[in-house]
Amino acid sequence: MISKNQLKAVKQLEMKKHRREQGLFVAEGPKVVGDLLACGFTARQLYATEEWQPHGAAPQRVTADELRKLSFLQHPQQVLAVFCLPEAPKASPEKGLVLALDGIQDPGNLGTIIRVADWFGIDTIYCSEDTVDAWSPKVVQATMGSIARVKIHYTRLEELLSHTTLPVYGTLLDGDSLYTQPLEADAIIVMGNEGNGISPAIRHLITRRLLIPRYHEGPESLNVAIATAITCAEFRRREGVSS
Amino acid sequence: MISKNQLKAVKQLEMKKHRREQGLFVAEGPKVVGDLLACGFTARQLYATEEWQPHGAAPQRVTADELRKLSFLQHPQQVLAVFCLPEAPKASPEKGLVLALDGIQDPGNLGTIIRVADWFGIDTIYCSEDTVDAWSPKVVQATMGSIARVKIHYTRLEELLSHTTLPVYGTLLDGDSLYTQPLEADAIIVMGNEGNGISPAIRHLITRRLLIPRYHEGPESLNVAIATAITCAEFRRREGVSS
Repeated sequence: MISKNQLKAVKQLEMKKHRREQGLFVAEGPKVVGDLLACGFTARQLYATEEWQPHGAAPQRVTADELRKLSFLQHPQQVLAVFCLPEAPKASPEKGLVLALDGIQDPGNLGTIIRVADWFGIDTIYCSEDTVDAWSPKVVQATMGSIARVKIHYTRLEELLSHTTLPVYGTLLDGDSLYTQPLEADAIIVMGNEGNGISPAIRHLITRRLLIPRYHEGPESLNVAIATAITCAEFRRREGVSS
Repeated sequence: MISKNQLKAVKQLEMKKHRREQGLFVAEGPKVVGDLLACGFTARQLYATEEWQPHGAAPQRVTADELRKLSFLQHPQQVLAVFCLPEAPKASPEKGLVLALDGIQDPGNLGTIIRVADWFGIDTIYCSEDTVDAWSPKVVQATMGSIARVKIHYTRLEELLSHTTLPVYGTLLDGDSLYTQPLEADAIIVMGNEGNGISPAIRHLITRRLLIPRYHEGPESLNVAIATAITCAEFRRREGVSS
């Protein structure tokens, strides 16, 4: 049996305000919950149907109907967990490849970008304070578990980029082809808002302007998660070629 | 004033059955409708508020409230049009780069893949008959107008791939790195279903097995639109390098 208080405690974590105040977030399904547990995240509460048989965790058993009530998903999947938010290290990047997101608004895009970062072994993403919250249920699910392995920092991007010693890359419509520019292994890649691209304040901090070549006149833009993937893939391909 | 019959005629085009029977589909917003008109699609009906000022088209003027009733969008945008479905040419591919989609289910993914194809100048996409319908309102909107420039054929993929003289590439978990394999300029690239990948019947028709290298053990897969983009980008990069 779940109590009314338990239900309320889960449901209010849909709002960023409550997640921040309580230092908690929700994750669902064996894959995402399993990845978070495997990466050492602390589960404050685990609600699961009998189907879910975790290693070394003791869930509170619930019925399929109770899980449906708790869940933020259209099709709840065996387990819903309340985890403690990880501590956000304050450090600025000194080496390696990192992403900086300037005002990403769509939860699906942010989730996909976190998944792309994970694929390419990019372990840190800096987000501007107006980027959608990575710990919202929608983003957490869209990462397919990658949020367990990628560190996310919300910070003042302008400050971070003003003080970094790393080269700052960004894709801009007036940049030079991604395929002809030198790409450093230690670098920050900035990706901008879905509608407006990189904001003016951040744009002038970009030291290396890149362009993803287009093959004819028709299309105006690429989805931001797609552009992130093409850019990260090329950075990693170059490293492979040079080593 | 829009009539009840007009409203009904638009609304039933949400269903594939009605789109096929009537040979019609719906598009919305100045960008998507504008791209379709510019590419020569025939508008059977144009409903627009006073804000929308097209070149050479005479819309039926509607109020914002009427547009809201007609629209499939959460935020209707100035114009909704009913277009004639394009004729699907029967030809199989002989040259150039084409995509073949094997059971893509998510409308957002299909829309994004069409947008990616357009960006990379891939003008034809073959879809298996169990791929989500490209002319559904959700897919049309997700293409951001690219559906005006990319030809979509629904066909029996197995037959198409059995008879083609082109090399058939596919990304598989046991393929060879995309970055070390020869990539032909005239080729078919097969992308598979979100959950299950390429189906067994199609898998054995793949003559060139590719893998997008992953940088550590954690993540299990990439989103299919992301994988399509990375693959298409590399095919196009190679052409540039070799020419």
